[in-house]
Amino acid sequence: MKIEGKEQQSLWFKDDTLYFIDQRKLPEHIELFKATTVEQVSFAISEMVVRGAPAIGAAAAYGMVLGKEDIEKTADRLKRTRPTAYDLFYAIDHMISRIHAGDTPHDAADLYVQDIIQRCKNIGEHGSQLIKEGMRLLTHCNAGALATVDYGTALAPIRVAHHKKKNIFVYADETRPRLQGLLTSWELYQEGIPHAVIADNAAGYFMKNGDIDLVITGADRIAANGDFANKIGTYEKAVLAKENNIPFYVAAPISTFDQSIKTGKDIIIEQRSDQELRYYKDAMIMMDQTPVRNPAFDVTSSRYVTGFITEEGIKKL
Amino acid sequence: MKIEGKEQQSLWFKDDTLYFIDQRKLPEHIELFKATTVEQVSFAISEMVVRGAPAIGAAAAYGMVLGKEDIEKTADRLKRTRPTAYDLFYAIDHMISRIHAGDTPHDAADLYVQDIIQRCKNIGEHGSQLIKEGMRLLTHCNAGALATVDYGTALAPIRVAHHKKKNIFVYADETRPRLQGLLTSWELYQEGIPHAVIADNAAGYFMKNGDIDLVITGADRIAANGDFANKIGTYEKAVLAKENNIPFYVAAPISTFDQSIKTGKDIIIEQRSDQELRYYKDAMIMMDQTPVRNPAFDVTSSRYVTGFITEEGIKKL
Repeated sequence: MKIEGKEQQSLWFKDDTLYFIDQRKLPEHIELFKATTVEQVSFAISEMVVRGAPAIGAAAAYGMVLGKEDIEKTADRLKRTRPTAYDLFYAIDHMISRIHAGDTPHDAADLYVQDIIQRCKNIGEHGSQLIKEGMRLLTHCNAGALATVDYGTALAPIRVAHHKKKNIFVYADETRPRLQGLLTSWELYQEGIPHAVIADNAAGYFMKNGDIDLVITGADRIAANGDFANKIGTYEKAVLAKENNIPFYVAAPISTFDQSIKTGKDIIIEQRSDQELRYYKDAMIMMDQTPVRNPAFDVTSSRYVTGFITEEGIKKL
Repeated sequence: MKIEGKEQQSLWFKDDTLYFIDQRKLPEHIELFKATTVEQVSFAISEMVVRGAPAIGAAAAYGMVLGKEDIEKTADRLKRTRPTAYDLFYAIDHMISRIHAGDTPHDAADLYVQDIIQRCKNIGEHGSQLIKEGMRLLTHCNAGALATVDYGTALAPIRVAHHKKKNIFVYADETRPRLQGLLTSWELYQEGIPHAVIADNAAGYFMKNGDIDLVITGADRIAANGDFANKIGTYEKAVLAKENNIPFYVAAPISTFDQSIKTGKDIIIEQRSDQELRYYKDAMIMMDQTPVRNPAFDVTSSRYVTGFITEEGIKKL
């Protein structure tokens, strides 16, 4: 991805240190977060220094490197960070099997992450075929390079379409409570892709007005039947897309598909802290007396999904 | 409504001054805003010191009192504050016709406002019949006493059900960008009604999980065919309620029904400033480089409405 004109990844490993672009500080500040211990990587995942299913997987892969010989303990610790994104578990199990097969942890993690980047690039190529000249797209949360090391999932087709000189316009849901829509806006701004951020409440308005031709989101975990978990609000946008006859695509690498789970009912939904709604940075939005509920994800039934954009092509389940 | 245990209205007129509870300062601070000129009343409406269709109507009625002899000019100025809420235009036209009929402006405004309060009380009585013991409700924005001088529209049935000792629970959408859900939470807190504030994105999650039995919202303008404008996001919640077979009611006095408008297509939707999304108080949420679109209302087709709760009873259009 471009950051101030320079090609960069959202995380990288160098000299036994995992470097993250600290997503808590974006878009105002481009700051690095450095992790040299498993505990620091776990913190980075739990506290959303890094977020997005494929990027969490990549972070965990390098976390396994930092854990050195203590494979089982490291895996256990990293798996206790966040429950919903499947890539986390996929990456850790993949690392364990590669290490058992004789790879060095460092080589296995590098390969895993290079592979993720390539898969996202391929998602971009396949998905860009859906994006026609002049289209107006909607996306929810951030499924961009920040969420996937590079390229993105939902944003990869948008990037490729833009590079192919298609004129497009992107509506980015602001995505309360964590406002990841601002990360999407920041990525689009860096690439020069025309867009606007809207309140989550306004997505239906623009769909109904005929202002949106295509919806693409990412996914955190996809069940065998195609039901999928993604950032809270995705279900709302999927229902609205169907109601307005707008195609709704989910972009995700194969590492997000969890064949061990039959339907969305079995996906564990993370409930996150009140504080995410209660504060914006230091500004108190909701007083202590205000009760808050904060599910971080929702599950959308496969019947709302027009297709899945994967590195292997576009699939219908 | 109760404020710290005392019965109070959201606005009142005394000694040629219109007093508002300044809704921009709630819930942190209970401050009064005083208006002694038409320009100050217009400011209060435009800047959302006062908001909610019936309360805007009440403010405009007293604005006509402050305008003294200059009836036409005052009406013109007040009508230029906000385009969507029908009560504004209804109240002003009502005042003009009462003044022409020989009433003093002060008496006409007092009567208009007392009438609004009584109508909301009746909405509460009729609507409370829909609320059964143990029900979990969802509401969007604030259609409470703050929005209507007293009782509220959507919140009136909830208040009455609570006073009748029914155990209920209310989910309040936070309602970005202006977060009027916090006003709803503040009113419910003052009355001791169990509730939680949720991100707008989470309403679908709770509906799908079977956690919501009934949705009640207010309305800013209702066309002859039952299509209605309300706070941005209402359309999303209405579609989701239908998808999940949850009854969706709109609570509004007759002054919100605009018989001159056939369908929702003819309702003018106010586009408000970027700043509403860009800042939370002094905290910048979105940078200057971030393009923003901010429609303040949306239109929901009557086919999503189970019924309208009015002062005359529950109507199906």
